[in-house]
Amino acid sequence: MIKIAIDTLGSDNGSELIVQGIIDFLKDNKDVSIVAVGKKEELTKLNGICEIVDAPEIVPMEAGPLEVMRMKNSSMYQTVLLAKEGKVDAIVSSGSTGGFLSSSTLLLKTIPGVNRAAFISPFPTKIKGRKVVILDIGASNENSPEELRQFAVMGELYSEHILDVKDPKVYLLSNGTEDKKGSPVGKEAFKLLKDDPHFKGNIEARDALAGFADVVVTDGFTGNVFLKASEGMAKMMSGMIKSAFKKNLWTKLGYLHVRKGMKEMSETMDYKSTGGAMLLGVNGVVVKVHGNADAYSTYCAIRVAKKLVEKDIANKIKEGI
Amino acid sequence: MIKIAIDTLGSDNGSELIVQGIIDFLKDNKDVSIVAVGKKEELTKLNGICEIVDAPEIVPMEAGPLEVMRMKNSSMYQTVLLAKEGKVDAIVSSGSTGGFLSSSTLLLKTIPGVNRAAFISPFPTKIKGRKVVILDIGASNENSPEELRQFAVMGELYSEHILDVKDPKVYLLSNGTEDKKGSPVGKEAFKLLKDDPHFKGNIEARDALAGFADVVVTDGFTGNVFLKASEGMAKMMSGMIKSAFKKNLWTKLGYLHVRKGMKEMSETMDYKSTGGAMLLGVNGVVVKVHGNADAYSTYCAIRVAKKLVEKDIANKIKEGI
Repeated sequence: MIKIAIDTLGSDNGSELIVQGIIDFLKDNKDVSIVAVGKKEELTKLNGICEIVDAPEIVPMEAGPLEVMRMKNSSMYQTVLLAKEGKVDAIVSSGSTGGFLSSSTLLLKTIPGVNRAAFISPFPTKIKGRKVVILDIGASNENSPEELRQFAVMGELYSEHILDVKDPKVYLLSNGTEDKKGSPVGKEAFKLLKDDPHFKGNIEARDALAGFADVVVTDGFTGNVFLKASEGMAKMMSGMIKSAFKKNLWTKLGYLHVRKGMKEMSETMDYKSTGGAMLLGVNGVVVKVHGNADAYSTYCAIRVAKKLVEKDIANKIKEGI
Repeated sequence: MIKIAIDTLGSDNGSELIVQGIIDFLKDNKDVSIVAVGKKEELTKLNGICEIVDAPEIVPMEAGPLEVMRMKNSSMYQTVLLAKEGKVDAIVSSGSTGGFLSSSTLLLKTIPGVNRAAFISPFPTKIKGRKVVILDIGASNENSPEELRQFAVMGELYSEHILDVKDPKVYLLSNGTEDKKGSPVGKEAFKLLKDDPHFKGNIEARDALAGFADVVVTDGFTGNVFLKASEGMAKMMSGMIKSAFKKNLWTKLGYLHVRKGMKEMSETMDYKSTGGAMLLGVNGVVVKVHGNADAYSTYCAIRVAKKLVEKDIANKIKEGI
């Protein structure tokens, strides 16, 4: 039976919604057992349906690596420790991103041949049902060309095994499509990648979601800007659409007509359903949920963690790299 | 009288639309004279209403600096030369971005105290009528911390003098809002900027269009990714909205109700009306129109060039830097 530990503390919305997500997930998934880590008194609803570990300290949002590693009684440290000791197959947290990243990297260690772990996330594309995975979207501040090459391999393996894409097409995020374009690091990475049969060249940010790329490789700083620029624009436009419909009775009537189409759009754009970002390249399955996690995003994140365990992604990377 | 030279060649859509933009502009602006540079036979409609320079060669899209500088009979080189020789106050082109950038930089030279010129563009924000200027959006592949500091000063001056913002708020594009966040270059730039009274700290890409920042400073590679990620997402969502309205008679009816709101949105998002990107930091006024320029975007670009001349932006930078 797959066993997954959930850090229930540190999310913006408190542990209650995380607990609800766990309850919902367990209802639908009899083949998974959960270990909930957090403040015992906040987890009473889980009594009897899952294992509980009392670890009441909360890792602050901006904790550095040393701070997290010292907070042995924090829910986050204890969650990662369960994975390190082989007691669970996967871990999920919506707490401090930096804290989760550093404790996971330090305790679980990177897979041999992987210099740096990377956050990867599937993005919607213009082509319905088709996702593109982009990595690194923020585990690093800077990366070497060799690290970008490793990201490409991890992305390929993720696309193949988790999204069932045959022969994934891999691109390097750049400021133009020509071979010679790119940041200094990107240009060097291009040279390392050009013999990879999956590698199709440079891609511009405006085409990353067009649907022809399966994997987009970038350094963590640029990837983070890409992620948040896309997010910001999507939110801005959603806001404008909403206010266009809210103006008066007639526009509200208008909304009734296009409700279905708008729902389809928000489903396509729904980052919650993708289950957050996965930390690839460490020995284990690590899923980071967005800080404002609710029951649904927790549910989706556990579902993704389960799939990553079933598909044995860490070992696939170990063999593939 | 303000005199502006327009390179009529090298745009994706041919010179005809550029010519139309010039005609439209001259109709509305009696206080500006235009020099149209290009293939004489394509400019016959302009006979009698503006000066024409016959320079029929087209600089290829991917021309390197050496290539442009050798193409003395190209419309682009001749356009920039007019500025260098002081025969015009501003130049506009929708041809090769790299070619226009390098010929402008090499012929006009950067302003003393400016190491690198930067492309700057106003972006729409969530707050109606408020724009944020972002630079560099692609003149460089990489920048030094000192260059980022200079971009901040140029952005401030642009915001103040061109957009009439009093006391503009300047931010550094980063992967988090805390002071210690950022790429290695960004962190160094932060130190150089922290005593600037306009500087308010780091900003995440998702907040760049939120409306509280007047200037966002970034290296050219990251800025280009930001620009194109925002553009890609905006296009993707517009496409989805359109197809939601196009489904059937009812949804088309729905559109009638929200037409006004949707029009407002596309006006807010309309990059054409911003007049493309301005090259700041060279001795002169240089405006680059998007490659798929039409009459309207040409019109807007000339209008921006005129404003930059009226506000004497190059001298403002010379004094401010």
